[in-house]
Amino acid sequence: MSRSEQFASDNYSGVCPQAWKAMEAANRVDEPAYGEDSWTQRAADGLRSLFDTDCDVYFVFNGTAANSLALASIGQSFHSVICHELAHIETDECGGPEYASNGAKLLLGQGENGKLTPESIEHLVTKRTDIHYPKPKALSLTQATEVGTIYTPDELREIRMLADQYKLNIHMDGARFANAVAALDVHPSEITWKVGVDVLCFSGTKNGLALGEAVVFFNKALAEDFEWRCKQAGQLASKMRYISAPWCGLLENNVWLDNARHANASAKRLADGLAGLPGIKLRYPRQINGVFVEMPEPLQAALRAKGWRFYNFIGGCARLMCSWATTPAVVDQFLADVRQLQA
Amino acid sequence: MSRSEQFASDNYSGVCPQAWKAMEAANRVDEPAYGEDSWTQRAADGLRSLFDTDCDVYFVFNGTAANSLALASIGQSFHSVICHELAHIETDECGGPEYASNGAKLLLGQGENGKLTPESIEHLVTKRTDIHYPKPKALSLTQATEVGTIYTPDELREIRMLADQYKLNIHMDGARFANAVAALDVHPSEITWKVGVDVLCFSGTKNGLALGEAVVFFNKALAEDFEWRCKQAGQLASKMRYISAPWCGLLENNVWLDNARHANASAKRLADGLAGLPGIKLRYPRQINGVFVEMPEPLQAALRAKGWRFYNFIGGCARLMCSWATTPAVVDQFLADVRQLQA
Amino acid sequence: MSRSEQFASDNYSGVCPQAWKAMEAANRVDEPAYGEDSWTQRAADGLRSLFDTDCDVYFVFNGTAANSLALASIGQSFHSVICHELAHIETDECGGPEYASNGAKLLLGQGENGKLTPESIEHLVTKRTDIHYPKPKALSLTQATEVGTIYTPDELREIRMLADQYKLNIHMDGARFANAVAALDVHPSEITWKVGVDVLCFSGTKNGLALGEAVVFFNKALAEDFEWRCKQAGQLASKMRYISAPWCGLLENNVWLDNARHANASAKRLADGLAGLPGIKLRYPRQINGVFVEMPEPLQAALRAKGWRFYNFIGGCARLMCSWATTPAVVDQFLADVRQLQA
Amino acid sequence: MSRSEQFASDNYSGVCPQAWKAMEAANRVDEPAYGEDSWTQRAADGLRSLFDTDCDVYFVFNGTAANSLALASIGQSFHSVICHELAHIETDECGGPEYASNGAKLLLGQGENGKLTPESIEHLVTKRTDIHYPKPKALSLTQATEVGTIYTPDELREIRMLADQYKLNIHMDGARFANAVAALDVHPSEITWKVGVDVLCFSGTKNGLALGEAVVFFNKALAEDFEWRCKQAGQLASKMRYISAPWCGLLENNVWLDNARHANASAKRLADGLAGLPGIKLRYPRQINGVFVEMPEPLQAALRAKGWRFYNFIGGCARLMCSWATTPAVVDQFLADVRQLQA
Repeated sequence: MSRSEQFASDNYSGVCPQAWKAMEAANRVDEPAYGEDSWTQRAADGLRSLFDTDCDVYFVFNGTAANSLALASIGQSFHSVICHELAHIETDECGGPEYASNGAKLLLGQGENGKLTPESIEHLVTKRTDIHYPKPKALSLTQATEVGTIYTPDELREIRMLADQYKLNIHMDGARFANAVAALDVHPSEITWKVGVDVLCFSGTKNGLALGEAVVFFNKALAEDFEWRCKQAGQLASKMRYISAPWCGLLENNVWLDNARHANASAKRLADGLAGLPGIKLRYPRQINGVFVEMPEPLQAALRAKGWRFYNFIGGCARLMCSWATTPAVVDQFLADVRQLQA
Repeated sequence: MSRSEQFASDNYSGVCPQAWKAMEAANRVDEPAYGEDSWTQRAADGLRSLFDTDCDVYFVFNGTAANSLALASIGQSFHSVICHELAHIETDECGGPEYASNGAKLLLGQGENGKLTPESIEHLVTKRTDIHYPKPKALSLTQATEVGTIYTPDELREIRMLADQYKLNIHMDGARFANAVAALDVHPSEITWKVGVDVLCFSGTKNGLALGEAVVFFNKALAEDFEWRCKQAGQLASKMRYISAPWCGLLENNVWLDNARHANASAKRLADGLAGLPGIKLRYPRQINGVFVEMPEPLQAALRAKGWRFYNFIGGCARLMCSWATTPAVVDQFLADVRQLQA
Repeated sequence: MSRSEQFASDNYSGVCPQAWKAMEAANRVDEPAYGEDSWTQRAADGLRSLFDTDCDVYFVFNGTAANSLALASIGQSFHSVICHELAHIETDECGGPEYASNGAKLLLGQGENGKLTPESIEHLVTKRTDIHYPKPKALSLTQATEVGTIYTPDELREIRMLADQYKLNIHMDGARFANAVAALDVHPSEITWKVGVDVLCFSGTKNGLALGEAVVFFNKALAEDFEWRCKQAGQLASKMRYISAPWCGLLENNVWLDNARHANASAKRLADGLAGLPGIKLRYPRQINGVFVEMPEPLQAALRAKGWRFYNFIGGCARLMCSWATTPAVVDQFLADVRQLQA
Repeated sequence: MSRSEQFASDNYSGVCPQAWKAMEAANRVDEPAYGEDSWTQRAADGLRSLFDTDCDVYFVFNGTAANSLALASIGQSFHSVICHELAHIETDECGGPEYASNGAKLLLGQGENGKLTPESIEHLVTKRTDIHYPKPKALSLTQATEVGTIYTPDELREIRMLADQYKLNIHMDGARFANAVAALDVHPSEITWKVGVDVLCFSGTKNGLALGEAVVFFNKALAEDFEWRCKQAGQLASKMRYISAPWCGLLENNVWLDNARHANASAKRLADGLAGLPGIKLRYPRQINGVFVEMPEPLQAALRAKGWRFYNFIGGCARLMCSWATTPAVVDQFLADVRQLQA
């Protein structure tokens, strides 16, 4: 890969070998369309056994669609969705949730390290209860968060109690769900249905696929007619097997988990290497595959001049993302360049 | 491939070798996301040179999205779309166009062999002009049609004159556009912008890709902010290169056209073989890669018993679809089975 | 009133005295806004006792809004609404139901005299059950129909059985509900909740108000958060009492029923007078306040020349509507003109 | 009127005499429906001459609809609307603008006294320009603001320059437009089209009508097919004259302006009386018909105990609204009660 692209985003990387192999296999024989193929059945069953529960599973093309359609299945146009002010559904989906729901409002909460606090949720639910303001119906949690932090099972349990009190359904944006499972070292069920998550959008793209997200309904009532919703929204793939077969590749032998562990470990190597270097400090605790680091502007410019690519996050801190494909060599090269530039 | 799947649909087949090769190449190096990669630039430029004009090109995941978003860019929720009663946007997209436009109505016209007649269009435009009924704004033509027939350049020219008279924009559903070009043996421009088509949805999926349609705006004014529309609707691929690279594979050396010619030729071989067999007659003229044939129910049942799969169309006629992957051997085997069963 | 406007439409007439008096009373004292006033409470209670059941009642501005929002409360964007091809929601609401539901499709059925037959309903429910076509969820009946005919309690009961079988909710467009009750001489409950109508849109405007329709949910589950739906859709009146007070005027002493009986009787007088005149025949049986009559074009022109105003309906038959305000004198004058012109 | 309702809201009051007289006159003769009556023509012409320009005028039922539909005519679902964080479209329309536009996002700006500053607008326009975030297209100004303050012609001119720079259309929420004109003592054109306002929602309800807002398009291009939009959204009144005739009553002899002046003067009397009383201070400058005052909780409770009704605004300050119907006697009575309670 082009070194310069390293760290810009975990969706710059390609398809992992196991997913590719499955896609090749799927390409050998013709199969029925629209998900009636054998691969899609296997992938859905695979996710059911992974979560160890009888959930409803649907595959859509990308994360914006997964989140927007899942949220639309929870509420109506006059309802609202509570999420953190840094949530991807608010900051980077161009109003996708508002569009799919025909007008639902996002209510923005706060919390340290990109995590919604129970206080913030309660404040948003209670500040308005009149009909002149959208009624809260969904609670959206990003696991892991946009700033690379994680909700613990206990934190999720506490939020669920609040959600029960206010009759909210919980949606989990799992763009980096695999990284969260890897970092917490828990069974996937322990941070989903066992703590009352109603629907999870589990990303395959950032974990090593070309595209394809799984919408997993643990609350099956919410999934009523969801296949019609996907079809109407342009999210039903005719040659579905090119999404589901790679998913089979990820699920076999827990490749999805290995990919996530690798990405997390790469980020740890990077964070550890940066730790203690003069003028550099972490903006957020490094918990998954992203390192958010404050470094002097000149240093950032010099690194870019050397061909490194990475995005600036709030307030100019550098966001360094690792993926299943990040190599230790590249991490070390980056660290070496930083040290050399500082010398 | 599994013989039994032959003829069910042209989206049962897989990815053609040239598209696959390009996808493999794209998988070797990391690239920027969201269409800022080199492949997407090449694919868009390739389409511009194919059509020999400076058009705006966008890639989306599937045909429902391509058609629905293109139509939404033409009209508002209180406008209407004129199409044939057999058009795919009416019969098989689960209200996708109504959803993307937030409520536009489809006005259904008639015409022999699935082709809208100027008379039918004029009737729909003029029958209501009051504010109690949606105002016609878009005219959607399917080229080739759902029943495998084709609009000639002259027919398209005549319709365009009508569209000018009534201020309608023309949308072309090109799910089988390649097959139409191959059958008419014209330059792609001769049945698009040269005859006043404003926007074309050019399908890659049915032509040999895993997924990915090109929305081609010849009328660039209609494309204003279309990238935002795609993003909001969940149609912007993060790893876009897995859609655009295969498109490059199709465009190089006119693979797209060879694939279409092959599919058309296979259907011709099938139609010719069936011609004149007792109790069998074509429902519609065979012009592209589909054969619509009336055959006795018992014969259809016997063929299915032998493992052949195909769909029944209006009034029980059998729809036999060929693709880029259909082999002469399979066509001949099908014909042999028919003859044997008739004996 | 201007004689020439007679018969054009029952919404050309004004506000009946009793409704006006109530409006005047409501104008004397200030009251809380948004329906928290005493009049709105009284009007809603009045409707509950009229229907002799504990239903949920909401007031909106007009019929398009009442029908569209009621239907949106039944289904989602990917569902469909079954109605007669002559239904007002299809022919004269400019896609209002599609808009409010964000894309639901209307499936058009047939039937003599503008009434849906069970066969036609069953055909529409069963012809498509795949995810490529919107799923039927609502059944909309117009009572009385657009052509002035009525469903009997038995017919409604039969349709309800079908609706149960296919899990459809029944919406009743009651733009002329009062006229239907008057014509059938039944208790309002006998053609609504007792025969399984889930939600009724009861028109006040055509019955003698300036504006204001009641949306009456007999199936209270469908009314969940409906007040939020109304508010968001711009259908919550701040000075609600100007809608609800007149409704109180209609409900006291059954003014609504007297108004409807008067309108029906005027139409009967008109129909009887036209019966047997040479070259004139009823297109549909005269059952409520509208007379649909075929008469020679020259005669229609001559009547218009004399200043009479009326609309032409399908195939040029004349639609003559009577209202609570139509006088016998005007009816007789019209009949005299017809006879004189024929002489 | 019931004294206790005084000051709660300017939409608690009734219909002013002149509007009522016009409504009575309109009730005497039947008239064509859907705005084809003589009153609607007169009202629209009256507004054109009031603004001294050839604008397009439409009447809808309420303010939520007027604002939502006007904004929808400016932008698409993937666009955004810039408004003050205290704007009514954000705080009290239950997502109406998001619904009518099928998902547009409101971007919230700041500014002293509820007025958007150019800096805040520029910040919102420039902070995001990528396709992952809705594109700003409309700028919504509330004149007068929710906290009873006013934009001067110079301030509006400065904002217009910014709007030109960033290609934004300006929408003016004129729920209290009349009060702003009265307070500024300018010609209506000086704070609308002469300073580049594209569309104004001019409220009749708060100015003395039962209901009915005028949507006035100075930028006629934005009004294309707006009558279809109104019809589809359930905002076309069949008996339109009951909205337009009262508007004629308001426009004749500048009744609308007298009503606004009276309401403003009543608020001034109230503010002056409260000025300097111990423990009482104005939260915002009193410029129109509302007085926002901070007073001790116990005093507020005592006043409510005496039967006075008023709402609490942000941070518990009391919002005291006056209307065309507020009498000096009631104002003085309120002041007397305050003084007595403080003694």
